[in-house]
Amino acid sequence: MEISQLGEFGLIDRLTAGLQPINPTTIKGVGDDCAVIRNRDTDILVTTDLLLEGVHFDLTYVPLKHLGYKSAIVNFSDVYAMNGKPKQITVSLGISKRFTVEHIEELFAGIRLACEIYGVDLIGGDTTSSRQGLVISITCIGEAESDKIVSRSGAKDTDLICVSGDLGAAYMGLQLLEREKVASAGQKDFVPQFQGKEYLVERQLKPEARRDIVDELAKAGIVPTSMMDISDGLSSELLHICKQSDAGCRIYEDRIPIDYQTAIMAEELGMNLVTAALNGGEDYELLFTVPLHCHDQIEKLPGIKLIGHITKPSLGCAMITRDGNEIPLKAQGWNPLAADSSSEHTA
Amino acid sequence: MEISQLGEFGLIDRLTAGLQPINPTTIKGVGDDCAVIRNRDTDILVTTDLLLEGVHFDLTYVPLKHLGYKSAIVNFSDVYAMNGKPKQITVSLGISKRFTVEHIEELFAGIRLACEIYGVDLIGGDTTSSRQGLVISITCIGEAESDKIVSRSGAKDTDLICVSGDLGAAYMGLQLLEREKVASAGQKDFVPQFQGKEYLVERQLKPEARRDIVDELAKAGIVPTSMMDISDGLSSELLHICKQSDAGCRIYEDRIPIDYQTAIMAEELGMNLVTAALNGGEDYELLFTVPLHCHDQIEKLPGIKLIGHITKPSLGCAMITRDGNEIPLKAQGWNPLAADSSSEHTA
Repeated sequence: MEISQLGEFGLIDRLTAGLQPINPTTIKGVGDDCAVIRNRDTDILVTTDLLLEGVHFDLTYVPLKHLGYKSAIVNFSDVYAMNGKPKQITVSLGISKRFTVEHIEELFAGIRLACEIYGVDLIGGDTTSSRQGLVISITCIGEAESDKIVSRSGAKDTDLICVSGDLGAAYMGLQLLEREKVASAGQKDFVPQFQGKEYLVERQLKPEARRDIVDELAKAGIVPTSMMDISDGLSSELLHICKQSDAGCRIYEDRIPIDYQTAIMAEELGMNLVTAALNGGEDYELLFTVPLHCHDQIEKLPGIKLIGHITKPSLGCAMITRDGNEIPLKAQGWNPLAADSSSEHTA
Repeated sequence: MEISQLGEFGLIDRLTAGLQPINPTTIKGVGDDCAVIRNRDTDILVTTDLLLEGVHFDLTYVPLKHLGYKSAIVNFSDVYAMNGKPKQITVSLGISKRFTVEHIEELFAGIRLACEIYGVDLIGGDTTSSRQGLVISITCIGEAESDKIVSRSGAKDTDLICVSGDLGAAYMGLQLLEREKVASAGQKDFVPQFQGKEYLVERQLKPEARRDIVDELAKAGIVPTSMMDISDGLSSELLHICKQSDAGCRIYEDRIPIDYQTAIMAEELGMNLVTAALNGGEDYELLFTVPLHCHDQIEKLPGIKLIGHITKPSLGCAMITRDGNEIPLKAQGWNPLAADSSSEHTA
């Protein structure tokens, strides 16, 4: 169905049908000049991401439902990275003429699924036509107790550096999808080859935000001294933490968590595996620091890896390789304004 | 200067240089995964607008500073329309290659000026490259006392319908700018003819949000029963209020406030003046209803015009013309998904 048949308000009615607020702080959602949130106990966190077709996603191989899911998840991830919980989102869409009502319903199905799973209310947005493909702008509101908020600037000398999950898989998933796209060019009935690499594809197309890690740390009574989510690559994010904390760091190559599928794919493509793990973006894992005395506790928590420690700022930021050499860390991740990539700067 | 010379973080540093939070509720602004707001006394309002080049603005005649100013104002206007006060915004930009650092600084100068004048903190955003044109997505957070929030759904039979300022001027300003754009085609040293029509141009390029009206009503102790800002045209907005309030209305043609420049321009263009005032968008005036007993108080307030009254729903929505005929109101305003225009649906 053509979107113009429904009109803006018809489309919105369809996309938001059956929406019921699940958070008691959501007082008023879609349908007025503003949404209303009533939250008198905790602080409010605000983050926003702008995703543009042709820059952030390629609809040749990204299904719209996955795109919707991921668009929401990347925002939730920023909230967890402050040790908060996402509670509300607004979704603005710019839609070009080639999209039908069914397309946008698919996209929204993904957004609504992410909201359902993570307990987030969709409270509003803006819908308009676009001359330049699909535009998705999502703002997420979260909440956190004032004394539990974790910023990028609290890392201290001797703190332990930790990451959740594994790194580089989303980047390898992207390489794989791009390779199959090239291979499919001009071919009918092309079947992409993903066998044995399903994890990489999933990491790229359907990432999750690490709510479980935030919950796990809370249960263990650990409040990180600094935290970020890894969207632009470990090196880049660690440099942010060190800069904002006025600190240096040492991480160990042999401690960097890498899935075997990532390793096999790097081998196949002739790429340096550690470079991919350090600089490949979109992992949406958590990078955080904890005081040294948390060492034994952290070691016992599943899905968390100790990869190094914070130092005095004068020592700079470096990785110790397997053969014991020291290599300075560089931000070689996404370069959002020079090439076809992006990165959020805050909020 | 090319934006790629600075990179994303360099650009952000430059655009946000010297930013100091002015609201005590703004705990943390630009520079982390999320911004932090601490507001334990009032409700939080959230609204968002997506503006796309070629759909919402034409840089042939819209100066970037004005565009920045207006992009912020349209969001502030939504917050005032709930009887709240805007306090924070996030600004996301998609920037194509033809824009320089200086261009984006101009745009930001307008956004920052609007923030300064209206007492709003710029707390974050997202910056990325765009393949085609400029993309601006702004989310505004406001605050309001719970029992003073005014929605679209509270209008009651016999309530008085009021509008601030005058209507149709922004639309006529757009017609004028479009006319001069056509006239300028292919001409060097073209000087557009705006004499005697400066008000129309200003209403289109540099609208203001009606904070003064919200303050005035508060001082007079009047809480409207319903309120909206007029972004899509009076007819369209009044139909929203009536639908959401389950009510009808009568407005009077001879009460609709119209500036003489608007009238002259409509005459020149051979357009129906009342149609322009009813359906021309982007006035950003406030449309609201008050109980009948506020009649004398409202009549004394400057800049507010009584234009009709709310009825039982069975009577429908109509305008009484100068010659006493009843014409049903229709939403002929912006049609955001069928043509080159847009409208926010909420939040």
